[in-house]
Amino acid sequence: MKKENKQDSIRYLFEPRGVAVIGASGTKGKIGHALCYNILEGGYKGKLFPINPKGGTILGQTVYKDITDVPDIVDVAAIAVPAKYVVHAVESCGKKGVKYLLVVSSGFSEIGNNEEENKIVALARNYGMRVLGPNIFGLYSAASSMNSTFSASKIQAGHVAILTQSGALGVAMIGRTTVTNIGLSSIVSTGNKCDLDEADLLRYLVPNPQTKVVLMYIEGVKNGARLIETLKWATTQKPVVVIKSGRSTRGAMAAASHTGSLAGADNIFEAIMKQCGVLRAENLDEAFNWCKYLAFSPKPRGKNAVIITNGGGVGVLATDACEKFNVKLFDDQTVLKKVFDPLIPVYGSSKNPVDLTGDANSDIYIRALSGPVKCEEIDATIALYCEASTFDSHNLIAMIKDTFKKHKAAKKPICYAIVGGEDVENAYLTLRKENIPVYAEVYDAVSAMGVSYRHQRYLKEKTGKIDEADIDVEKINAIVDQALADKRRFLLAHEGIEVMKAARIGIPRSKVAKGLEQVLESAEEIGFPLVMKIVSRDILHKSDAGGIALDLENTQDVMHAYEAIIQNCKRYKPDAKINGIEVCEMLEPGTELIIGARRDRAFGPIIMCGLGGIYVEVMKDVVFRALPLNKKETMNMLKEIKAFPVLLGVRGEKRRDIDGIIDTIIKVGTILNKCKKITDIEINPVVVYEQEKGLRALDVRILIKNPDKEKK
Amino acid sequence: MKKENKQDSIRYLFEPRGVAVIGASGTKGKIGHALCYNILEGGYKGKLFPINPKGGTILGQTVYKDITDVPDIVDVAAIAVPAKYVVHAVESCGKKGVKYLLVVSSGFSEIGNNEEENKIVALARNYGMRVLGPNIFGLYSAASSMNSTFSASKIQAGHVAILTQSGALGVAMIGRTTVTNIGLSSIVSTGNKCDLDEADLLRYLVPNPQTKVVLMYIEGVKNGARLIETLKWATTQKPVVVIKSGRSTRGAMAAASHTGSLAGADNIFEAIMKQCGVLRAENLDEAFNWCKYLAFSPKPRGKNAVIITNGGGVGVLATDACEKFNVKLFDDQTVLKKVFDPLIPVYGSSKNPVDLTGDANSDIYIRALSGPVKCEEIDATIALYCEASTFDSHNLIAMIKDTFKKHKAAKKPICYAIVGGEDVENAYLTLRKENIPVYAEVYDAVSAMGVSYRHQRYLKEKTGKIDEADIDVEKINAIVDQALADKRRFLLAHEGIEVMKAARIGIPRSKVAKGLEQVLESAEEIGFPLVMKIVSRDILHKSDAGGIALDLENTQDVMHAYEAIIQNCKRYKPDAKINGIEVCEMLEPGTELIIGARRDRAFGPIIMCGLGGIYVEVMKDVVFRALPLNKKETMNMLKEIKAFPVLLGVRGEKRRDIDGIIDTIIKVGTILNKCKKITDIEINPVVVYEQEKGLRALDVRILIKNPDKEKK
Repeated sequence: MKKENKQDSIRYLFEPRGVAVIGASGTKGKIGHALCYNILEGGYKGKLFPINPKGGTILGQTVYKDITDVPDIVDVAAIAVPAKYVVHAVESCGKKGVKYLLVVSSGFSEIGNNEEENKIVALARNYGMRVLGPNIFGLYSAASSMNSTFSASKIQAGHVAILTQSGALGVAMIGRTTVTNIGLSSIVSTGNKCDLDEADLLRYLVPNPQTKVVLMYIEGVKNGARLIETLKWATTQKPVVVIKSGRSTRGAMAAASHTGSLAGADNIFEAIMKQCGVLRAENLDEAFNWCKYLAFSPKPRGKNAVIITNGGGVGVLATDACEKFNVKLFDDQTVLKKVFDPLIPVYGSSKNPVDLTGDANSDIYIRALSGPVKCEEIDATIALYCEASTFDSHNLIAMIKDTFKKHKAAKKPICYAIVGGEDVENAYLTLRKENIPVYAEVYDAVSAMGVSYRHQRYLKEKTGKIDEADIDVEKINAIVDQALADKRRFLLAHEGIEVMKAARIGIPRSKVAKGLEQVLESAEEIGFPLVMKIVSRDILHKSDAGGIALDLENTQDVMHAYEAIIQNCKRYKPDAKINGIEVCEMLEPGTELIIGARRDRAFGPIIMCGLGGIYVEVMKDVVFRALPLNKKETMNMLKEIKAFPVLLGVRGEKRRDIDGIIDTIIKVGTILNKCKKITDIEINPVVVYEQEKGLRALDVRILIKNPDKEKK
Repeated sequence: MKKENKQDSIRYLFEPRGVAVIGASGTKGKIGHALCYNILEGGYKGKLFPINPKGGTILGQTVYKDITDVPDIVDVAAIAVPAKYVVHAVESCGKKGVKYLLVVSSGFSEIGNNEEENKIVALARNYGMRVLGPNIFGLYSAASSMNSTFSASKIQAGHVAILTQSGALGVAMIGRTTVTNIGLSSIVSTGNKCDLDEADLLRYLVPNPQTKVVLMYIEGVKNGARLIETLKWATTQKPVVVIKSGRSTRGAMAAASHTGSLAGADNIFEAIMKQCGVLRAENLDEAFNWCKYLAFSPKPRGKNAVIITNGGGVGVLATDACEKFNVKLFDDQTVLKKVFDPLIPVYGSSKNPVDLTGDANSDIYIRALSGPVKCEEIDATIALYCEASTFDSHNLIAMIKDTFKKHKAAKKPICYAIVGGEDVENAYLTLRKENIPVYAEVYDAVSAMGVSYRHQRYLKEKTGKIDEADIDVEKINAIVDQALADKRRFLLAHEGIEVMKAARIGIPRSKVAKGLEQVLESAEEIGFPLVMKIVSRDILHKSDAGGIALDLENTQDVMHAYEAIIQNCKRYKPDAKINGIEVCEMLEPGTELIIGARRDRAFGPIIMCGLGGIYVEVMKDVVFRALPLNKKETMNMLKEIKAFPVLLGVRGEKRRDIDGIIDTIIKVGTILNKCKKITDIEINPVVVYEQEKGLRALDVRILIKNPDKEKK
């Protein structure tokens, strides 16, 4: 069998020339029937081939006894036979030359049957086939009008692509999209993700011109590093919204029992999604609100938004919401006056929120809402309406349609929040069927506009650049290999220090010297103040032995200390073999940081940073990122630490060497990237001084393993 | 005029025997017409008296030219004449013996016209009348079927009492209540709150048996101390939900321009509402969801909730939501198995969330949902439904009604979240009209149940007890009076220390001694280690003069130090007059706290506490409470400090003297309570040691003013 390039062929999953349903059935209520019915009902552009050993016809289509009997090309086969027959079906598909398998059947890893699932994948790989599922409800693709799902016979074509790890929820989401009139470019049930996962599917869905927004429901991430890479690219093309359940410890447990995948720690997921520019919604409602807005609203050209309202109360609520969702309210009063004073009632206010007062009717609204359309300085409009007896409510729908159209023509985003009784509710229900961003709650409206801004800000900030440090990879690998040869899974303290040196990360300067002359030389080299310590295998408790001298300010001190240490130690243990004296720089107190990096099981290489001591232990004030990073991203990461101002200098202290911290983080990231046998690095503490004085890693723990010999 | 007791008479505002409309009009569209129309249309049980100098009839009612002409009792007069005529109308009402004025007219403090507003209040007071408004849409009271509002002719009677500071929003809220079928026991527009405010109105609304929940929309608080007192009482009777807008800095600005009242700092408001057991909603949707649930759901008897679902995905989402909203999921698997295994399909799961699987139909739901009804150990149910083709969707509504009824009969709370298409949407719209807590979003359902639990927890924890400290009020007042006599608005450092002493708050032990003998005596008394400092008006820079000695460990050290200080100072300034030597305890380093209390303009006496230094300056890690407090509340307050674990002892340190901190906070609170001329106290830092070693106030700033002489 010729193996095709995966990237090129993914199109066949969504736009297959022929689809076979293995386990097709003429009995209503059976999955094999529903699949055939929905494919036909949906108006699929290719050919359907029902497969059943019994033969005959189903819904007027000839049934083939075996897929290998089909005389035409079959790109996709939906398999809906009991779990124990799936392997056989896969084998037949392989022989037929099928490209993609939708394994609808359940009874695999979700109930602990990993073996059977692995068999399917291995067999499919062998034939160059890719597998979606198992344990899925199917796939819908607007591009080929193919509804090969077993649950929803009516799916509306449109601009949102949905990937869902939960089947039941996916089906319910399809229902919700029809109620809220959100059309789909595709919906894919990812199920157990034994082979194809979100990253693969995004490669087709994102460039697809019909897709304007991607919505993903994720319970657990398996190959996070690849997902991260794909999302970083995807979000530069289209907005991506994600609902990740299993936030809570208990939710993660529930998710694990549900799809048998790993739910990563939520704060890591949160940080990484932000890093990738993904818009994370807390729940379905929020996600749908966002998707609808993002699919139908133009991108704001600038950040100046204006609120127009007939009630002060909702105006204040919207102002609060703008702060929460980071929507900037325009406040150049000169411009606001110029634009709105001629348009609004004399007793209204042209301050933002612009108040038309409770007496405003639809004419006044239409006039006032023309202000932002024409004004160069205003980039986005939030229109609020509080039901008022003075408003001509039979014109509410027309007013909104009219002003929306004008905004659309001018490519300016607008959202509406309308609060009131039956008339308002009817307007809301009517307008949401017309893809106009109308909300019944002020916070929902502003939140939707807010994510649009958030995505724009991300795009503006984002660079594809990766910064890498110049480190001595060979030397580090040699240290690690030696430790692995010693059957260790960790590095010893001095090996850790050697790794720091090889990565050019600052450590306390120190030298082991023999005899007074060498000690004085070392002292000169390292600089004062100094610490001296006895080096002897026979003296374990150096201070008990009087083998340590602190705070040595000059040569004189060093000479005295040398005499004292030697004499003390001889007196303490006359037969001790003295290997030398360690001369170290005496560290001043600085700001303690913790920098940690590890290969996360779900997300691949990640890095963590925070201030040390109580900040990390009690306040949990740390931030995460996926690796690799560039310097700008690293700076942004540091700024997210709540105690960051401490690094800028507080209480009369000087600014800390922030560039040095960034360099160190890049270096640690580079180690993890280049030295594949290192799994964990934690520098705690690394002490940071003022700009000129740099930083010093005081304690380093490094874990290692041989990835070739052990499975992660 | 006889003045009635306010408390007794407030009933007349809501259940007046007669209502006059001053400014009544026969012209449709006029406020004076709408008021009369709505009162009649609403079926008001008392008598309506339209007042207009033109006389005649309006809507079939005789119009009186002046209110004094009315031959019957008039308890309430709604005034809807232009602002400039209001004072005259008030005068007439006073003469007539009206008890309550609804000043609907606008044009007062909301546009800066405070003078006219003050006149109204003064005049009304004079006649023993109370004023609601001005700048309001009116008041509706189910108890008397009185709809004296000008905006909404149809208001549904029910169990939610609404107080709204925004008129326009209030009217829109009435509309929303009809759509969502939330009946009202009352809705009151509070407007400018020139006289009656939320605290007054709650005194009637809360005990009213028709009220089951109170909802308040607040933009700014004027007499916070009284509101706090009232809310503390109200929440023990009924759940109180509040929406406070003006959270953001900008929102607060918008609120100020809107009603001319002060929006207090949001974190203070937030803390105080929590302290009062008030349930704060972020927005209207949330508030309405909560109110509806609280009005119609029984209180949970215990904390064990169970999720029942047909989809794993929504189950996980609900589990996350339970963690967020603090709903405890029952997890005694023995009980769950016993209860659910006989009720659910064999392939389902009796683990919580209980999974009926996607194949569940209405029968299975009805069976499964009978589990919690019968089980003693389960206290609350969260029922989830994901639209599935296998479900008999025509039975969805019946299934929910049936299971709700059973839960209701058993007095067990249940909430539903249903996700799907048209059928589900219709069920949602139908059921919400029947006061069944059905939500379209899992988070909304769990959030509603969560606030019910929150209220229960508050009631359980709450005690009315106030702890007061035994402080020397007379002495403190004497210090303050002396400073006021000196025309100071602050206390000097040594005066602050004297106040600390009078309140028995720990300060560093110190004594001024003359001559070596006295110095030695003082040293003995204070205990070692010690610090000695020269006391001389002629020596300002003590350390430059060599006038300070640190770290004195014993009598010997003290004698040497005495000699040295005297000699140094004589050498430094031979003619200096030496007043003595201050002998102080030498303080060890401890944990620094900040404790501050002040009379807030909006909320009255409040207290703040947090760890000192960077914790307060950078991390803003402080907590607020309204005063007075008891020790338990104070402990809860401390626990909210994020760095609280530091006080419990971290990194090998011993537990700090937390009882001492609580005592100090109670003492500071008592000072503010008893010494009315003190406006601000800030102790920063107060150093806290281990249990036995107590704490020391190192620096105290106290601001004062004479409340009798100056207006706040």
